[in-house]
Amino acid sequence: VRHAVILAGGSGTRLWPASRRAKPKQLLDVAGRGEPLIAGAIAIGRAIAGERVAIVVGESQVEATRSVARDVRLIPEPLARNTAAAIGLAAATIRKDDDGAVLAVLPADHHVADRPAFESLLANALAHAESTDDVVTLGITPTHAETGYGYLEVGALDKVGPQRVVRFIEKPDAARARELVDSHRYLWNAGIFCLTARRLLAELDAHLPTTAHAVREIAAGRGRAVDLFAALPSISIDKGVMEKTDRIVAFPADVGWNDVGSWAALAAVRGVDASGNTIGGTAVVVDGTGNVVIGDDATLVATVGVSNLVVIKSGDAILVVPKDRAQDVKKVIDMLGARALARYL
Amino acid sequence: VRHAVILAGGSGTRLWPASRRAKPKQLLDVAGRGEPLIAGAIAIGRAIAGERVAIVVGESQVEATRSVARDVRLIPEPLARNTAAAIGLAAATIRKDDDGAVLAVLPADHHVADRPAFESLLANALAHAESTDDVVTLGITPTHAETGYGYLEVGALDKVGPQRVVRFIEKPDAARARELVDSHRYLWNAGIFCLTARRLLAELDAHLPTTAHAVREIAAGRGRAVDLFAALPSISIDKGVMEKTDRIVAFPADVGWNDVGSWAALAAVRGVDASGNTIGGTAVVVDGTGNVVIGDDATLVATVGVSNLVVIKSGDAILVVPKDRAQDVKKVIDMLGARALARYL
Repeated sequence: VRHAVILAGGSGTRLWPASRRAKPKQLLDVAGRGEPLIAGAIAIGRAIAGERVAIVVGESQVEATRSVARDVRLIPEPLARNTAAAIGLAAATIRKDDDGAVLAVLPADHHVADRPAFESLLANALAHAESTDDVVTLGITPTHAETGYGYLEVGALDKVGPQRVVRFIEKPDAARARELVDSHRYLWNAGIFCLTARRLLAELDAHLPTTAHAVREIAAGRGRAVDLFAALPSISIDKGVMEKTDRIVAFPADVGWNDVGSWAALAAVRGVDASGNTIGGTAVVVDGTGNVVIGDDATLVATVGVSNLVVIKSGDAILVVPKDRAQDVKKVIDMLGARALARYL
Repeated sequence: VRHAVILAGGSGTRLWPASRRAKPKQLLDVAGRGEPLIAGAIAIGRAIAGERVAIVVGESQVEATRSVARDVRLIPEPLARNTAAAIGLAAATIRKDDDGAVLAVLPADHHVADRPAFESLLANALAHAESTDDVVTLGITPTHAETGYGYLEVGALDKVGPQRVVRFIEKPDAARARELVDSHRYLWNAGIFCLTARRLLAELDAHLPTTAHAVREIAAGRGRAVDLFAALPSISIDKGVMEKTDRIVAFPADVGWNDVGSWAALAAVRGVDASGNTIGGTAVVVDGTGNVVIGDDATLVATVGVSNLVVIKSGDAILVVPKDRAQDVKKVIDMLGARALARYL
């Protein structure tokens, strides 16, 4: 039967200072909907799999995740070993009780504007995975020449339904991204997959045998999980499995998807006001456009004469960065660690 | 004998959010010296006048001023009526007990880097005012083509000692400021004057007779101070007296003076680090120069990839403004008033 597997392993430093070690991105109300991102993933999981929703989560996040996902099964990762190990662990654990399990694998920290359309596509993808035993990925129809995502090469995008994935493309530079989007033969790789647990484990047997062994041992209750994971390579499901199998098809998905990979993405997720600014909390923007300005309940943020700037107040820290350099928040993270200011991480 | 009169009537909105209605600029440690600006003015007053230091202050600021100026005489302004009335009130009040009083009039909210040189010049100016009964102003030797100040036209600046002030010049535009500075015949008008109380009252008699009458009545304890002040014009000592008298000379002063008229001025007052940034509180500046970034004890401010930007966290508010638009903080003040956010003022 159908299961939803939500991957909640990310640390989400790219949304610092809202995201912290103790509160990664999926636990934040990034979209301003009054719920954390992971609640959206859980709602989607419930819609397609009923009670059979599981979250794979790092040991250190179990408690915080439990507090926002009370009735959901948590599968703790003994160590962070990237998505191949995380999904493998979920597949082996779920298959123990359901040999015919088919899984929809969803990131915990993405935002989907059109949930009904997304759920409908996922249902189709699950049905296709059940009937063909192929790997089915939802490839996002590109809306612009994004350099921050990997791409999937497929046939022409005007074809309806599943299309063979010819190739995975790494994050391209700007010129290449433009080419890819203009050719109408590429989708964004959003890391959303549907496949049977049996197929996933067979692929791991073929391409990552130590991972396949480790997750079966852990699911069977044999060996120390942390030791088994410690010996595994840290490799993504894309690199470790998807790029290697030839049994993979994509469903094009045009569902308002956003990975909220930086503060710059907030404009798309939250929308802009009449002045072209994205405002949260108590904020006043004078003479400027294209800004993302998020205060918190306690603090007013006022900007004058700045445009395309990100200003975030969250807890005990404030970040100011141009929108086109929003990825560079990691430089702050690095510097705080180096300067004995790690309490702000 | 010699007296120092410190004018503390300003509301100082230009340093919002550090300055608030309840805490104007002179009560802030703007220079990062561990004392409010007014403490610097008091120290200078003590150096030139011993115990005879008085602060003219608005009724609503008496308590806050008292807390940082414990042993100083406060002369409360019944209403804010600009500097002509404030100085007139001080002159009439002081002269009641000292008919031969000579006054050094100092703003409470300026910063002077070289206090010994400034005190020495003030002593000279007081001596000159005593011996000649002229009005003596300290004109600041310009260091750049500033558009934010008025200018005093004098003879060539290479002359030592007092020079006749030919003319007061309003705040010039950038091209005119350049001309003025390049001609070496102009000084900045810093609002620093030495003159006898008798001369000041005589000038008021000549040019602002209702003001002269009102301050004498108040000093004599006749009439209701608030009613007398309410009837006065709100006019500066520059406009009301200095521009009209022909008995005014200037001493050129090169003393590291700064009126801290906006956050942009902080770079000059506090200095810059090796990266060209002015940092206060807990702050991290990555990839940028020319910034003024002031956090408070409770909050980290981090910037990435911005330059020539002002970022101020103070209490419950944050301001972000380009350095060259730092004067526009008043637009925020106006908007907060209009938007029922006046609690942040």
